[in-house]
Amino acid sequence: MDLLTLSEIRRAAQSGPVNARVHVQVENATAKLTREQKPYCELSLADACDRMTLRVWSDHPAYKACSEMTAESFVELAAEFHTHSQYGLEAQKWTVRPLTPEEKAALLGGPADLRAKQKADSDFIAQTVKSIVDPRLRALCDAFLKEWGDRFRRTAAARNYHHARRGGLVEHTAQMMRIAVEIAPLYPQLNVDLLLVGILFHDCGKLWENALPESGFTMGYDERGELIGHISIGLELVNSLWRKLSAENANAWRDLVPASEDVRLHLLHLIGAHHGEAQFGSPVSPKTPEAMALHYIDNLDARL
Amino acid sequence: MDLLTLSEIRRAAQSGPVNARVHVQVENATAKLTREQKPYCELSLADACDRMTLRVWSDHPAYKACSEMTAESFVELAAEFHTHSQYGLEAQKWTVRPLTPEEKAALLGGPADLRAKQKADSDFIAQTVKSIVDPRLRALCDAFLKEWGDRFRRTAAARNYHHARRGGLVEHTAQMMRIAVEIAPLYPQLNVDLLLVGILFHDCGKLWENALPESGFTMGYDERGELIGHISIGLELVNSLWRKLSAENANAWRDLVPASEDVRLHLLHLIGAHHGEAQFGSPVSPKTPEAMALHYIDNLDARL
Amino acid sequence: MDLLTLSEIRRAAQSGPVNARVHVQVENATAKLTREQKPYCELSLADACDRMTLRVWSDHPAYKACSEMTAESFVELAAEFHTHSQYGLEAQKWTVRPLTPEEKAALLGGPADLRAKQKADSDFIAQTVKSIVDPRLRALCDAFLKEWGDRFRRTAAARNYHHARRGGLVEHTAQMMRIAVEIAPLYPQLNVDLLLVGILFHDCGKLWENALPESGFTMGYDERGELIGHISIGLELVNSLWRKLSAENANAWRDLVPASEDVRLHLLHLIGAHHGEAQFGSPVSPKTPEAMALHYIDNLDARL
Amino acid sequence: MDLLTLSEIRRAAQSGPVNARVHVQVENATAKLTREQKPYCELSLADACDRMTLRVWSDHPAYKACSEMTAESFVELAAEFHTHSQYGLEAQKWTVRPLTPEEKAALLGGPADLRAKQKADSDFIAQTVKSIVDPRLRALCDAFLKEWGDRFRRTAAARNYHHARRGGLVEHTAQMMRIAVEIAPLYPQLNVDLLLVGILFHDCGKLWENALPESGFTMGYDERGELIGHISIGLELVNSLWRKLSAENANAWRDLVPASEDVRLHLLHLIGAHHGEAQFGSPVSPKTPEAMALHYIDNLDARL
Amino acid sequence: MDLLTLSEIRRAAQSGPVNARVHVQVENATAKLTREQKPYCELSLADACDRMTLRVWSDHPAYKACSEMTAESFVELAAEFHTHSQYGLEAQKWTVRPLTPEEKAALLGGPADLRAKQKADSDFIAQTVKSIVDPRLRALCDAFLKEWGDRFRRTAAARNYHHARRGGLVEHTAQMMRIAVEIAPLYPQLNVDLLLVGILFHDCGKLWENALPESGFTMGYDERGELIGHISIGLELVNSLWRKLSAENANAWRDLVPASEDVRLHLLHLIGAHHGEAQFGSPVSPKTPEAMALHYIDNLDARL
Amino acid sequence: MDLLTLSEIRRAAQSGPVNARVHVQVENATAKLTREQKPYCELSLADACDRMTLRVWSDHPAYKACSEMTAESFVELAAEFHTHSQYGLEAQKWTVRPLTPEEKAALLGGPADLRAKQKADSDFIAQTVKSIVDPRLRALCDAFLKEWGDRFRRTAAARNYHHARRGGLVEHTAQMMRIAVEIAPLYPQLNVDLLLVGILFHDCGKLWENALPESGFTMGYDERGELIGHISIGLELVNSLWRKLSAENANAWRDLVPASEDVRLHLLHLIGAHHGEAQFGSPVSPKTPEAMALHYIDNLDARL
Repeated sequence: MDLLTLSEIRRAAQSGPVNARVHVQVENATAKLTREQKPYCELSLADACDRMTLRVWSDHPAYKACSEMTAESFVELAAEFHTHSQYGLEAQKWTVRPLTPEEKAALLGGPADLRAKQKADSDFIAQTVKSIVDPRLRALCDAFLKEWGDRFRRTAAARNYHHARRGGLVEHTAQMMRIAVEIAPLYPQLNVDLLLVGILFHDCGKLWENALPESGFTMGYDERGELIGHISIGLELVNSLWRKLSAENANAWRDLVPASEDVRLHLLHLIGAHHGEAQFGSPVSPKTPEAMALHYIDNLDARL
Repeated sequence: MDLLTLSEIRRAAQSGPVNARVHVQVENATAKLTREQKPYCELSLADACDRMTLRVWSDHPAYKACSEMTAESFVELAAEFHTHSQYGLEAQKWTVRPLTPEEKAALLGGPADLRAKQKADSDFIAQTVKSIVDPRLRALCDAFLKEWGDRFRRTAAARNYHHARRGGLVEHTAQMMRIAVEIAPLYPQLNVDLLLVGILFHDCGKLWENALPESGFTMGYDERGELIGHISIGLELVNSLWRKLSAENANAWRDLVPASEDVRLHLLHLIGAHHGEAQFGSPVSPKTPEAMALHYIDNLDARL
Repeated sequence: MDLLTLSEIRRAAQSGPVNARVHVQVENATAKLTREQKPYCELSLADACDRMTLRVWSDHPAYKACSEMTAESFVELAAEFHTHSQYGLEAQKWTVRPLTPEEKAALLGGPADLRAKQKADSDFIAQTVKSIVDPRLRALCDAFLKEWGDRFRRTAAARNYHHARRGGLVEHTAQMMRIAVEIAPLYPQLNVDLLLVGILFHDCGKLWENALPESGFTMGYDERGELIGHISIGLELVNSLWRKLSAENANAWRDLVPASEDVRLHLLHLIGAHHGEAQFGSPVSPKTPEAMALHYIDNLDARL
Repeated sequence: MDLLTLSEIRRAAQSGPVNARVHVQVENATAKLTREQKPYCELSLADACDRMTLRVWSDHPAYKACSEMTAESFVELAAEFHTHSQYGLEAQKWTVRPLTPEEKAALLGGPADLRAKQKADSDFIAQTVKSIVDPRLRALCDAFLKEWGDRFRRTAAARNYHHARRGGLVEHTAQMMRIAVEIAPLYPQLNVDLLLVGILFHDCGKLWENALPESGFTMGYDERGELIGHISIGLELVNSLWRKLSAENANAWRDLVPASEDVRLHLLHLIGAHHGEAQFGSPVSPKTPEAMALHYIDNLDARL
Repeated sequence: MDLLTLSEIRRAAQSGPVNARVHVQVENATAKLTREQKPYCELSLADACDRMTLRVWSDHPAYKACSEMTAESFVELAAEFHTHSQYGLEAQKWTVRPLTPEEKAALLGGPADLRAKQKADSDFIAQTVKSIVDPRLRALCDAFLKEWGDRFRRTAAARNYHHARRGGLVEHTAQMMRIAVEIAPLYPQLNVDLLLVGILFHDCGKLWENALPESGFTMGYDERGELIGHISIGLELVNSLWRKLSAENANAWRDLVPASEDVRLHLLHLIGAHHGEAQFGSPVSPKTPEAMALHYIDNLDARL
Repeated sequence: MDLLTLSEIRRAAQSGPVNARVHVQVENATAKLTREQKPYCELSLADACDRMTLRVWSDHPAYKACSEMTAESFVELAAEFHTHSQYGLEAQKWTVRPLTPEEKAALLGGPADLRAKQKADSDFIAQTVKSIVDPRLRALCDAFLKEWGDRFRRTAAARNYHHARRGGLVEHTAQMMRIAVEIAPLYPQLNVDLLLVGILFHDCGKLWENALPESGFTMGYDERGELIGHISIGLELVNSLWRKLSAENANAWRDLVPASEDVRLHLLHLIGAHHGEAQFGSPVSPKTPEAMALHYIDNLDARL
């Protein structure tokens, strides 16, 4: 039986039953009662890009094992998959077994082509950051990638819409940088350094709002995200990195032009204004060419 | 005395009186009365990028000559220019004389650098159109540039905001094409032919809404623009060119893939949806990748 | 057993089980699985004004016959009908048989009283069009009714709200014309010819957006409607008819007052502006008395 | 010199100076200072449909007389009228004299043709009211016209837009009734009695919000209008008339169908909902066919 | 078995089955059919703050008794309560018996602590009203509490959101008065009498819109509420009380300052403007300090 | 001649000319030209609560002195003040002289009663802060008042609307605290410490957006305010104070309940959410009782 991803099975099952294996994390296992008061167990199963529900009736041989599963369980589900008109993807004649450590690592790493794509995107970001001329902005990017790079690579770009999967933020950021690099020569008034750094940091607050854990696929809700939102978290992160770097490089940065405080404010402006309008959550509207450019580049990539 | 443009004079006069000559069209000459019931004459003067008002009191030696001027008059105004706190740019100690035919031609041609820029933009459009692979779309562009190229090169891109000068639409269109050419490789799902042709035609209705006459700088109001708007004019123009070409090439186009009717509808969709939302005047919202891309590229260039 | 329409059965079944026959088209037949993985077949049945769902279990004698039905099948369903609290109208103890060609024709023709009403509405439109004085506008109406009259009579006025049934657009158009005829004498500034023609054409784009096929009750989605919307389709249709007539009558129309181009633009304005505001999809807002009147007459009839 | 109205003079003066007489009320006379601190007097002059400003310099022979004028003064102004580019209509070489009582009465009566039109409109309303079948609704209309008819005939339909002149509300109401009479036969579900009475009362709160005094043309601001608005004033007026009539006719009304309380609530609904949506000031949105019809008829007449 | 309220049971059942008794009104009993066409009976049960559904299968011993229940039935339900994942609170192994008159009275009185709280709130309102200095406003409050006090104490403050239970309006009104009493000293410009009376009457129209009957927990829909809304009902109620009191106290009120008509209009303004903006249903926006204060105090208490 | 404030003079001059002295800062002195090209000088004069314009003609004895004035000049203007119908407050027959150092200090201190009021407000804030129980929140307030107290006391609460004068923010903050202290006992669910601290900091970003200098009345525009807005500045200020205090008190704060990070996030939430909705500039909407309360208390005081 082929080893497929949930998305591949879902697609294939639209044309009829599919016999396949899939490797998944158990997001949670809940004990439930049928209307007739018989107990069953409902498993929510997830891989990198999709999720499905498996109902385990109490007379199934795996009932006991499934009932004891937790969010730490990773399993292989082998089954005949059907698309049910009302309940979506369903498994019949199924068996489960725990994944070996190797299988689990491979699953968390993601499908090879996605992994390769995200690796290329991540490398492109690292390389682009090296092209930044202003020493302050470059130092800021270096510090961010060093301190938060791993978490950055695990973050989704959104909860639902575009790039809502582990690593989606890296993909979105890299693509925005590519656009910026292409169109900057057409608008000489744009400060490319500033625009690129703005792109790197514009959604960095999502490292808390949309973070996925190192060893799983479940995006929790974060108190920080709920109470102050990803824009304000992003402003705070930049301020905190800047303060540290600024103290360490006090002499070197003192006489740079433009003044460091101006650079900092312009960068914060890019983060604060990137939603474009107050009604979409931006506390300030775009007032600089870089802020305007970043806002439209963000929309362009998000909608394509 | 130097020959300057109105914009150059306006800029210079902010730091004090400026002695200069300027070549302008008389947009209109209106007889008026002061509060004390003394007659004077108010001239509205325009060059390619700017306009000013000249009040001619009845005791000025040129009063009679100015009173008889019409929108066909082109003059040189030599004066000491001041910035008045309330009335803006004002001329003192001034004289006027009609332009020679050569001077008038040079004025209508526009400042040399702007002329060169618009020539380059126009050439870039022509060249880009040659890169279009689909024979139907390329024929459509050719027909448009052949039949309406001159009017296109005289059209402003807007009445007030961006590119509101003769030829502004060519500048805007060329820049949008440059962006499209740069970012298309980043989004393989985009049909570049379609996107480029959509850019060429997206504002073609403005050839009527914002047209500037061959020999002047005054944008009139057009009944067509008022009653049906530039989007519907654009749709009609494409339909009319398409019908003609489609009849002439009936055999050649019959078996092309995708079907010609599909190509026509997708192109019309780009024009109809380019304002993005109904509230901004688009009768349909963007539903294809090209429509989405065109909408954001349009915004990006308009705001930068 | 009485032969009723679906709406009549639905109404009657609210007070208890109803034994009746109904003639319907099979919109589609889909093979499905119960939760317990047993196959069944779901038929969507429609007549002129209503639709219901029939689930055919695999042990029903008609299961095989029903499974093979297509959108070309027209059947009589005889049953005891119930209103189920959760699933709506349901059939018990039912049998089906194909319709005879005569029965099918009668069904497609619609209930006699509706047919009579739509016939009267259609006649009223034809008669009203005869009262139009301007030869161009009258010719345009004649051409439209001749070329597209059949399709017009099959078109619904909306997908969901008012008049969403075959022929609904004729009913809506006739009623709007009646209002116009009544109130025009109260507003001498209205050009009645223009207003009546505007009413005839205001929704003519729906001949594509909301068209029902000659031999069925299922409104498909039309690429034209999706990509450019019924307003732009309507503008294109008028332009296309106008062009042809204008060429054929070049001499006769040359010296008419007002100029033909003005008449065309004012008519296009009525179509473009009839939704009243950009946010409701009109690319221009009403600027003439006729456009204002048409907009409110449209609303009045749609909401009553 | 001809005796004209202000509107006639304004129109004529656009083509050059006009020698004419005009009869006006002095709305107010204000003592002012020029920039050079010289006193002058500013008169605001009004007739039935228009108003102008007259500045009286301190060296004018009529300065003293004008300075003492009040809102009780009615004068004839004979002058050469000019259109000033900035200040609008201006009087030169002018004289004033008080109106005779006959002239004042004629002025307050309004131009003969307007008076005739409003008389016809008022008669039409009275006659239409006689056609009402329901004895409660007819009694209500009778009581209203008897008690408030004079004030009603003096009320403007709006402060700025449509029908903003003395008697404008009668004109608007009559025209709405004419529309209702014409279209009601087209919609058998409409209760014509209710619709007509709703039209009569829909703006009756404006008798306070937009009332013009018996002997003048100045619409004051009314505390009632400011604090509760014309919709709530209208509801209160109907309630107050209804209570009185209902007590007087207790026996006669007791067994009528539909119940009197229903009739009252449906009529109040027409007043409360006639602006159509909360955002335009209606505390309830239209929920009955009559409320929907009244709302669109109101809009139709207001915009035409 | 403990006697609990529905809310207490719902809370407890989240951690497992609960054996308990609950006293409830039968809101309605509906005969239904299962999908397999077997009859059952669905009871909607309510107490002061909550409701649940009980499905009685036809083989249950209480089936016949339950089928005959009406909105006049009050019962004790003793059962093992479960939380069903899809259907919410469900009863197993249950029995019912009618309540004794004493039990029914206790149920309608509400839980002791809620009754005590509402009693305290009601007393606080009565006491606060006594502090009102203006004799007209105090008389108005007295008349209202005397005539409508009982209904007032039964009214919910909302259909869904805040205080949506019997007596909720008293709780909301008392709390708003407490806030007003506390903050009035901080704003000397506020007329406290007016503000307190405005609070008492601001939602009095809900006595019809949200009224609960004397002997039950079911809020019906009221024609008055539907057709004119609680704001207009409130204005009418105040007008009607005022008219009566004003006639009875004609002499006493004649020379009071401010004038009685001013007091009436300012009070009506508080009712009309308390939603703050037209879009939320207020026919006028707040124009006095008391109206502004009332609007924000209302929001503050509603959202906390 | 009496020494008055500008506001007092403005009020008095409405009833006729006023002879008085006023002490003012010269905000700026601009050289201008009359329409006839004669030079004059325009002074903008300000005191704590108001401003006026003084035009100094070139033939005035003080012309030269006034032309040389700067924003450092403080003068006494003695004059006859008039209200000009078009130009507002104007000075006639005036003289100026520089203020003595004592007079300047008194002017900057503000009118005695305003100074006393702001002193009382400032003291109330200091005292209220002492009542805070949570050691972290109290330390934060102490640090803020110690480090930024002077600047806080000079800040206006708004650029135009409420409290737009030096010290206005202290007045607004104190009044909000008074409301909070009064209503908190009515809502036991409110954490009073948190609410009070939220009030102190909610507009602290305005110390940069609306700051007035120590020695003048002119509010400049601040790059920080323009680029990131007062909400984000406030978040940054709290973060920066918190970081310092948190490091200094690491041991003491470690085991406090609730956790310090929770306290910090809840406080940041109060600042971020205090505008209530995204469209008014809040990056998050209020999600805690304290945030809801703060939002409405802010509105209440701002509008009263």
